[in-house]
Amino acid sequence: MTRLVLVAGTTETARIDGISAAGENPSLMVHTPSADAEILAYGSTVRSPVVPVSPTGCPTPAVMTRAVREELGFPVTVIDGGLAEPTAAPTVTVGARPGGDIREDDPVPTAPGAYEAARQFGRRMPDDEVLLGETIPGGTTTALGVLAALGEREVVSSSLRENPLAKKQTVVEEGLAASGFTRGDAAGDPKRALRQMGDPVLATAAGFAHGAIESDTAVTFAGGTQMLTAVALLRHGGVETTVPVATTSFVTASSTAVEALAADVDASLTVTDPGFDGSDHPAMAAYARGEAKEGVGMGGALALAERTGTSMVTIRERVRRVYERLGGPEEAE
Amino acid sequence: MTRLVLVAGTTETARIDGISAAGENPSLMVHTPSADAEILAYGSTVRSPVVPVSPTGCPTPAVMTRAVREELGFPVTVIDGGLAEPTAAPTVTVGARPGGDIREDDPVPTAPGAYEAARQFGRRMPDDEVLLGETIPGGTTTALGVLAALGEREVVSSSLRENPLAKKQTVVEEGLAASGFTRGDAAGDPKRALRQMGDPVLATAAGFAHGAIESDTAVTFAGGTQMLTAVALLRHGGVETTVPVATTSFVTASSTAVEALAADVDASLTVTDPGFDGSDHPAMAAYARGEAKEGVGMGGALALAERTGTSMVTIRERVRRVYERLGGPEEAE
Repeated sequence: MTRLVLVAGTTETARIDGISAAGENPSLMVHTPSADAEILAYGSTVRSPVVPVSPTGCPTPAVMTRAVREELGFPVTVIDGGLAEPTAAPTVTVGARPGGDIREDDPVPTAPGAYEAARQFGRRMPDDEVLLGETIPGGTTTALGVLAALGEREVVSSSLRENPLAKKQTVVEEGLAASGFTRGDAAGDPKRALRQMGDPVLATAAGFAHGAIESDTAVTFAGGTQMLTAVALLRHGGVETTVPVATTSFVTASSTAVEALAADVDASLTVTDPGFDGSDHPAMAAYARGEAKEGVGMGGALALAERTGTSMVTIRERVRRVYERLGGPEEAE
Repeated sequence: MTRLVLVAGTTETARIDGISAAGENPSLMVHTPSADAEILAYGSTVRSPVVPVSPTGCPTPAVMTRAVREELGFPVTVIDGGLAEPTAAPTVTVGARPGGDIREDDPVPTAPGAYEAARQFGRRMPDDEVLLGETIPGGTTTALGVLAALGEREVVSSSLRENPLAKKQTVVEEGLAASGFTRGDAAGDPKRALRQMGDPVLATAAGFAHGAIESDTAVTFAGGTQMLTAVALLRHGGVETTVPVATTSFVTASSTAVEALAADVDASLTVTDPGFDGSDHPAMAAYARGEAKEGVGMGGALALAERTGTSMVTIRERVRRVYERLGGPEEAE
């Protein structure tokens, strides 16, 4: 059975106004990864005080991944990639601590240690195959920072319908300056890029994937541009095998640059469309409009559903049920 | 679906020579709860350097509980009740830290906080029913200490074939003296009993059960005298409903005092016999001889198998497979 490994954590970069929709407002975003992990593990929030929604009310992609899980029954392991709030979801510890704002110097001092501990853990995973996903508000901005530090193509997606790319670029410029970096200064040194310009989730995910791949566990990166950044980090760390990345049609619909980044890092991209277009359901309609797009392993979970012959009609029915359980209105207002 | 909640942790009391068989020797016992949680979660050890066996080679009851899980597929949540070594099993954090030797003053300062955090967690569990198990070497000695502090009947079982009860009683006497307690001094004050004479697993398990019961989640205590001590703690904390305790036939075969303690604390005892008598399998034969007896929720898992109409022949076949996977010889030498 394929296992979903979710890395959940935080970066203070998410507090910057207007760069993330992974929470109703920046002060609530700190709860999002803890809540996402609970939704994935239990089907509802448990200790978390909030169900994560975007400022416009679009629910977290954890709803979608949980819906697929309720149909397929795959096992889940959550790794603590720097959580800042308690979660009822059981987590594996690798020493990651909440990440700082990348506009400051040395925002992620635990990145190198978490990378190595996650790599050891990945090496020892007994599974034949894992899907690797993430949840971290602000994670596309830190991914953009890592791509800049590595000297890679600087393209990332967004949980907002309109990607605030100019704002993210400004943050990255300030971060590069604070770190005394010019573009490409951390080429060939993934841990330095992560420590200075990244976040603890990306460090943990890349380290875990590195270890899993070197011990012949098949890893499918379940996500969009953050996961492609994890692949870029592996390339700079000397991992050469082609790796699969499974994302949603919402990510690729928003920009063709994602395909270009996938080609750059030699990732084979699988894109799954859950068929939310034209839906009268508030959650599915929001995704169809381009909100949220991806996260919490959503693209990988959908690809797994497709691969096992599960109809998207069935998945959509499950989405309705999970959404309703979480307190969403059953149909559009 | 019924969930197994396993509380895993440590007490330095286990370092006292000759009081526990939950590890090949006292220095390896610190790994046992971390390894048990991995076996339950993954079916094999992952980060742990050892597969827990007794000094005579009898494997951990995690093998038995995992075997039932592989047949029934129930979900598992592990709570960190004071682990001292890394585990690849995801764990929920409630603030418990490894417990000290109860012969010293204030050995478990995190007990009251862990009790309350676990209680909050238990209150919020979405499940209708949970089985609650434990893994902590030395745990029957600390349970004996708690029973003494509460003024309850001082009977506990043992993972050793011959219960070293006189040695445990000596440890408890020293502990009472170090705490300035006479018997019954902590009656009505379960957190004080736990902090001075207990261990972090018992504190976490009792707190979790307290919260789950007060929010109408059915709790079956899956274990022997340690779990009966958890029930005693609830009684001293004002919980009055009759609670079910599910244990193995090996616990009740060793002593009739277990039934007496169950009656004292108003627990309805379910005893399940997995039919290991006369087995030529080294693990099952060791249990039939009275080694290990119980732990890691074994009695509760067996009761769940029986309740769902799963044949013990099927369970025994699963035990063979798990044992073999863990590196045990397939048949007796």
